[in-house]
Amino acid sequence: MNVQSTLPLRGRPVVALCGGVGGAKLALGLERLIGADLTVIVNTGDDFEHLGLHVSPDIDTVLYTLGGLSDVERGWGRADETWNFMESLGGLGGETWFRLGDRDLAMHVERTRALRAGVSLTDFTTAVARQLGIAASILPMSDDRVETMVITADGPLPFQRYFVGLQCAPVVKRLEFRNAERAAASSQVLAALGNPNLAAVIICPSNPYLSVDPILAVSGIRKALDHVTAPIVAISPLIGGQAVKGPTAKIMAELGVPADSVAIARHYRFIDGLIIDETDRGDAGKIDMPVYVKSTWMRSLEDRDRLAADCLDFAVRLADAERRKVT
Amino acid sequence: MNVQSTLPLRGRPVVALCGGVGGAKLALGLERLIGADLTVIVNTGDDFEHLGLHVSPDIDTVLYTLGGLSDVERGWGRADETWNFMESLGGLGGETWFRLGDRDLAMHVERTRALRAGVSLTDFTTAVARQLGIAASILPMSDDRVETMVITADGPLPFQRYFVGLQCAPVVKRLEFRNAERAAASSQVLAALGNPNLAAVIICPSNPYLSVDPILAVSGIRKALDHVTAPIVAISPLIGGQAVKGPTAKIMAELGVPADSVAIARHYRFIDGLIIDETDRGDAGKIDMPVYVKSTWMRSLEDRDRLAADCLDFAVRLADAERRKVT
Repeated sequence: MNVQSTLPLRGRPVVALCGGVGGAKLALGLERLIGADLTVIVNTGDDFEHLGLHVSPDIDTVLYTLGGLSDVERGWGRADETWNFMESLGGLGGETWFRLGDRDLAMHVERTRALRAGVSLTDFTTAVARQLGIAASILPMSDDRVETMVITADGPLPFQRYFVGLQCAPVVKRLEFRNAERAAASSQVLAALGNPNLAAVIICPSNPYLSVDPILAVSGIRKALDHVTAPIVAISPLIGGQAVKGPTAKIMAELGVPADSVAIARHYRFIDGLIIDETDRGDAGKIDMPVYVKSTWMRSLEDRDRLAADCLDFAVRLADAERRKVT
Repeated sequence: MNVQSTLPLRGRPVVALCGGVGGAKLALGLERLIGADLTVIVNTGDDFEHLGLHVSPDIDTVLYTLGGLSDVERGWGRADETWNFMESLGGLGGETWFRLGDRDLAMHVERTRALRAGVSLTDFTTAVARQLGIAASILPMSDDRVETMVITADGPLPFQRYFVGLQCAPVVKRLEFRNAERAAASSQVLAALGNPNLAAVIICPSNPYLSVDPILAVSGIRKALDHVTAPIVAISPLIGGQAVKGPTAKIMAELGVPADSVAIARHYRFIDGLIIDETDRGDAGKIDMPVYVKSTWMRSLEDRDRLAADCLDFAVRLADAERRKVT
């Protein structure tokens, strides 16, 4: 833990915006560093009803990662998972293209039950996080339904059909976040972003198009970010033109955008600073905002801790620079 | 297979009324003997919504037993079952008093999805039976909700709370089958019981109070049975004053009824004949209807086959006797 450089935060709150696996890794590093001072706002554009159950893939990845339950090898789902439900479902003639593990299923059944009983997704997520001993606040971006639709050369596809069913094969033309304009940011999300003591907003190295843009598409969140005076820092999800995991580079190519950190900086034009990987050191001069060049590939737990400390350190420096400018 | 004595049935249909484990054993024997000529009408008074899922314990026991999927050792649920869903649910703070196995869960999730989509319980059960390669027709007693309530010295208890939650400990004062009078027998049930070619109705050795009475409480079924001309044969669930499994004898004692086959015959006063166990040979003379004394304890598969053949044989003899009386 980089005590020296994060000391200036002195218990001030930090908000992270986050999708699934890659983002959750950094969220874990941040939580290890600042615990209850962290609020993670999570993409729910991938949520869908499957087998009559409400599945929230990104929220679950964050809950499992911060709760110490995730399968680090496989990269998604729970450790020590078994698949007897799926096997049995197949035997009954049920749908098996989207795999739900036996342990994972408990989350979907409990969530579906709670939502049907009138509990909000926010309150359910908060209760589970507490039950799992997670210090940070984990918040869905909205309690209203937002649906990420991937508009492809083969037609519009619901996110999971594109991502899991078709393994991201169709060529992406654009993304739509249905109902995002109408969806309300929850009071908890607005309180976190509107906290006058906020020290930083961190955009995790999640897929900008599939995981972060749905969050930014919620108009209440976008407006709240416009009023945030704390530094907003993003971490480029690309290393040497490739994402560690997932289709970010493929989608950028399909959208006619170069798959590099320069394009990421342009995509996030409202942020105050971008962290790029050492591999992409050469891009630093082409980016029209403050850049921090760091190792961003999170293989070990120490990598997560170090990158989390770098994010906070960068935010503190950006705030100092801003203060010097003002005074 | 007792080919000689069942030959007179010549492909004529047989209906069995059945609860869970004990009844399903005989249903399996009957299916092995007459296959698609068998229709099993199953108690749904134990059905309940749990964790937001529609659970039909007796239907599932019959499906698993006839589908070759049941756990013969444990006496309920599926073979090769695992319990990771339950363990994980406990970790999330969910309800764990009613145990649902990982494989078993597929049935509840699929059924709940189907019912919510407007599929009837009858059609769902039929589709699953076909998928599992079951030749017999398995029919819920009604597509309408009937709720078995156990009125105990401690107050009224929903069936599963009494049976699983409290392990049948409370003293039973009486049983109520809520909505049974209003619940409609399905067209499939009425067609099976109204078939003019019907050879026999077999009341399986299920718990008369908890498993068979709810079926008989559906007024359409009771009326249809009144018009059945084929012999109605019951198998006493008691052997030497005890049920092989379950609280039949305990409930009879609590209701002030002697726990013997004489009382079973009185309880089923509308039937044409009762099969009692060899152990209870001494009761035969005290029963005011035709009695068949046979070995009724079904330990092996051969026991099931033999008792099934005995049931049909008894029905054929009762029909012959009736014919001789008439002519």
